[in-house]
Amino acid sequence: MSKFMMDRLNALQAYVPGEQPQDKTYVKLNTNECPFPPSPYATRLARQAAGSLNLYCDPECGVLASVAAETFGVSKEQMIFTNGSDEVLDFAFLAFCGESCPALFPDITYGFYPVFASLHGVPYREIPLNEDLCVDITPYLSLKGTLFLANPNAPTGVALGRAEIEKLLQARPDSILVVDEAYVDFGGESALPLIEKYDNLLVTRTFSKSRSLAGGRLGIGFACPALIADLKKVKYSVNPYNVNSMTAAAGVGALLDQEYFAKNVAVIQENRAYVTAALKERGFTVLPSSANFIFAKSPDITGETLYKKLKEKGVLVRYFAKERIKAYVRITIGTKEQSDVLISKIDEIAEESK
Amino acid sequence: MSKFMMDRLNALQAYVPGEQPQDKTYVKLNTNECPFPPSPYATRLARQAAGSLNLYCDPECGVLASVAAETFGVSKEQMIFTNGSDEVLDFAFLAFCGESCPALFPDITYGFYPVFASLHGVPYREIPLNEDLCVDITPYLSLKGTLFLANPNAPTGVALGRAEIEKLLQARPDSILVVDEAYVDFGGESALPLIEKYDNLLVTRTFSKSRSLAGGRLGIGFACPALIADLKKVKYSVNPYNVNSMTAAAGVGALLDQEYFAKNVAVIQENRAYVTAALKERGFTVLPSSANFIFAKSPDITGETLYKKLKEKGVLVRYFAKERIKAYVRITIGTKEQSDVLISKIDEIAEESK
Repeated sequence: MSKFMMDRLNALQAYVPGEQPQDKTYVKLNTNECPFPPSPYATRLARQAAGSLNLYCDPECGVLASVAAETFGVSKEQMIFTNGSDEVLDFAFLAFCGESCPALFPDITYGFYPVFASLHGVPYREIPLNEDLCVDITPYLSLKGTLFLANPNAPTGVALGRAEIEKLLQARPDSILVVDEAYVDFGGESALPLIEKYDNLLVTRTFSKSRSLAGGRLGIGFACPALIADLKKVKYSVNPYNVNSMTAAAGVGALLDQEYFAKNVAVIQENRAYVTAALKERGFTVLPSSANFIFAKSPDITGETLYKKLKEKGVLVRYFAKERIKAYVRITIGTKEQSDVLISKIDEIAEESK
Repeated sequence: MSKFMMDRLNALQAYVPGEQPQDKTYVKLNTNECPFPPSPYATRLARQAAGSLNLYCDPECGVLASVAAETFGVSKEQMIFTNGSDEVLDFAFLAFCGESCPALFPDITYGFYPVFASLHGVPYREIPLNEDLCVDITPYLSLKGTLFLANPNAPTGVALGRAEIEKLLQARPDSILVVDEAYVDFGGESALPLIEKYDNLLVTRTFSKSRSLAGGRLGIGFACPALIADLKKVKYSVNPYNVNSMTAAAGVGALLDQEYFAKNVAVIQENRAYVTAALKERGFTVLPSSANFIFAKSPDITGETLYKKLKEKGVLVRYFAKERIKAYVRITIGTKEQSDVLISKIDEIAEESK
């Protein structure tokens, strides 16, 4: 840290993204990417846009907004587009959290929430998951503050139903609930329809997972027009041109090619069932996942050991050095071939440790 | 504003980007875009990247960093890449400004600086430009705080020399100087070489103007490794994947095609001289510009009237409703053809008001 950095950022621990090693080619199951390329239509539209980058992109993402409004059954005034869904989360911390309004989230969830809070000087409180690593909504019902729930949760993959989300919205009318639905397309029940009814709900989505646009960076926030107006005020105070022209175009293609999207999601769900069954057969504990990853615990070795041994064998998974979950690894669901490599390497590791 | 928005953002006035009207096609000289498309090499590389967007982009922009290090004669540790240069400015406000360290900038400059300050609760002070709308460095020499200087300045186009920048760096060793060089390629003297010598200098650049990538969103911050580490800590606490794969690839192409870049800059400089001479012949005051725009004052009509009449005639320029500069309009320098349309419309307006 230089002597110029503000003191209040002293304690800030930045987010650590999943590793992207360059030493060799891995079967990469560590950052929840989609193994399938973007829709050919998304790629085509992005390529078209690449020819006229001398002009600024549209801060309102007009064409994308029209298509998204149609796809999701909402109005343009109920959406904000961002440079990945991390950005809309950042905007929400800026707009809706502060000294008078702490952030709340589970102790085991997306690791970026405490980072946003620290960066913006927002007090926060982490509420423990149940023993079985599920969210129990009870403690939240009586707590004031802006609540961030990843649903399905990460890295567990476990989802809450819409009824529970609605209960939270009703019990806390003076507090915002942010439902981070990065993984919802793989089996979660979306809270999106509830934005019509509740003025305290923000739902965030990403194109990084089910829409195969992780490298394009596109997120959406959905809420009632008043909350969206607040978030847009923040956007226009940070980076009005936050979504570049190529990405906005790719987003249009990704949304219009619903068939491709649905097919990929179905394959991932199938492979998830396949990997889950294979690991359970081998004595693993696997949490019930509604996402494109599973959270799994070996019957024999620690999460760290499994992570390291798999890495040696060319398979990357993600391990979190955190007390309650250090027995686990998070494994992204890839193709059938990747799944088979994973399982065979797990078998090799079991064989070697006999 | 919703009831959930933090009170401290009550007074926040978001930045207003230049208008992008959709009602008809304008000769668009209002947002300082480059009239020439991106380098064909930039477009080709961006298109290539569009095929593999399912994978996350590289948070370190490794390939781009190598090429940029070579182009600018710096090390990778002296650079940070951002989603447009607005983002590196935002990071600088977060990292290097606060209650104990106000932001300083001229009263007439890039309109985003006070917005960043307000958003992040940073106190700021605006120091008036001289009567001739130039920066006088004298008042800054004895002021503490993080100083933001657009150089060339916007919307005036007037530049400070490197010697004056160095004087500021020497006089204020305990304060950071941010030199925002968005327009430097069109004739300014860059402070970039000074980052080797001064640990209190941050130089920002954009690919939006001279590199024809406004719609791609790419900026760079240059500084000593310690300041860059601070800014990266902020980046990794907001949006590690802030630069998407296509844009990073386009940046590589734009930097490697120096010939195309140099040719475009030369044409803009030539057209700037042409428009400046034409307006002066017509009695306009035109500030000496080192940028890809000019700041000009009609001998007869107000800036607002000129802006409105030009818009009616299909030419968009930018007008700022601000006390000291309301006689002026800012005119982006486009192609020779666009310049001729502009001049002929100005002649029409003069004719009509006789």
